[in-house]
Amino acid sequence: MDVAIVGGTGNEGSGLGLRLAGAGHRVTIGSREAAKAAASVAAARERLGDDAPIDGAENPDAVVGRPIVIVTVPFAGQVATYAQIRDRLEPGTVVVDATSPLQTAIGGRPWHALRPWQGSAAELAASLVPDGVRVVGAFHTVAAAALAALDRPVDEDVLVCGDDDDAKRLVGALVDDVPGMRWVDCGPLEVARITEQLTPLLVSINRRYRIKESGFRITGRDAWGAPA
Amino acid sequence: MDVAIVGGTGNEGSGLGLRLAGAGHRVTIGSREAAKAAASVAAARERLGDDAPIDGAENPDAVVGRPIVIVTVPFAGQVATYAQIRDRLEPGTVVVDATSPLQTAIGGRPWHALRPWQGSAAELAASLVPDGVRVVGAFHTVAAAALAALDRPVDEDVLVCGDDDDAKRLVGALVDDVPGMRWVDCGPLEVARITEQLTPLLVSINRRYRIKESGFRITGRDAWGAPA
Repeated sequence: MDVAIVGGTGNEGSGLGLRLAGAGHRVTIGSREAAKAAASVAAARERLGDDAPIDGAENPDAVVGRPIVIVTVPFAGQVATYAQIRDRLEPGTVVVDATSPLQTAIGGRPWHALRPWQGSAAELAASLVPDGVRVVGAFHTVAAAALAALDRPVDEDVLVCGDDDDAKRLVGALVDDVPGMRWVDCGPLEVARITEQLTPLLVSINRRYRIKESGFRITGRDAWGAPA
Repeated sequence: MDVAIVGGTGNEGSGLGLRLAGAGHRVTIGSREAAKAAASVAAARERLGDDAPIDGAENPDAVVGRPIVIVTVPFAGQVATYAQIRDRLEPGTVVVDATSPLQTAIGGRPWHALRPWQGSAAELAASLVPDGVRVVGAFHTVAAAALAALDRPVDEDVLVCGDDDDAKRLVGALVDDVPGMRWVDCGPLEVARITEQLTPLLVSINRRYRIKESGFRITGRDAWGAPA
């Protein structure tokens, strides 16, 4: 699949880029600056090999014609980022918003959360994209360090929410291509009000135990993925 | 240990009672009505044997002299319950609040949450108990069905938060006595603002997959329990 990762030079975005390009998807790393994107692509190729299917572009160019656009930017930059890309998003595009509304956006702590007016950053994202673009919330809880450790599987489940079942399945197919990761359908987009709050919870756990990559597995069913 | 379970006739409370009495702790099931408590105790003895260390009492009597008091009541009854027991709680008592502020309290849905004025039901509880009583938030995400299935271990971690490390360790020791369960120190009591919101998330997942006992495991560390 062709996947753009907007804000793809950050820890979370570049980790996802490594994993998805490593699985054979054609990844475009988007950044505010082309030079930053190019540096990130060079670093990824160093790890994956020179022929890895990964390229870079400025954010607005990165998303053109991509059926899946993953947005991994800090909350403070979310609105400006969507303003940059919204005109390039075609109806049907699946936008995966991974924004966690941390209080760092206002100079606070990453173990404290903010509450966006729309209820969640994902619902805020949905208010910023053209009609017909399908917003899915996912990847908030996946530790960047776990994504970057290519020598081992990712021991985490991805909590996915959204109002369009097909869009969730498409994102789920990407998740399934990363060794170890499974996806769990958590319900409609408004459930992002909860899943986005799990990032500060994991930050609090990391802080308490002095570790870097706590994450979630969901129990109670042998397999997850698409509900029957 | 001597443990009172206030609201212990509900699904969550009686499941905890079964597991803790089964592990050899002396459990007192508290209820608004002595007859209900007695019926719950009889049902527990039917499963655990007649000599199981489990008794019943009205809520205010159940907590007297107990070093650990677990409160498992619906959000709608939380304030009234604390009003019933608060005069019987001695300084040093560990009160484990398991209240999830679900919108069912106002006739709404269990996959929607309310936000208490204090930030969380656990912080609301802390405002209702005498000085010196140590409030810990825990057990919100543990499925009642998993607790009641005594023939198998509980495949879930317990998210524990609170401002007193010793109190968390005491609760953690109870958790460790239930086969399969581990406890994760999530930080100060205010983190209950997040952990309590995980109940509606699990309800949403259960609903989506038509199951009854989704739960959490935390990854990123081989062992949990007390941080070093």
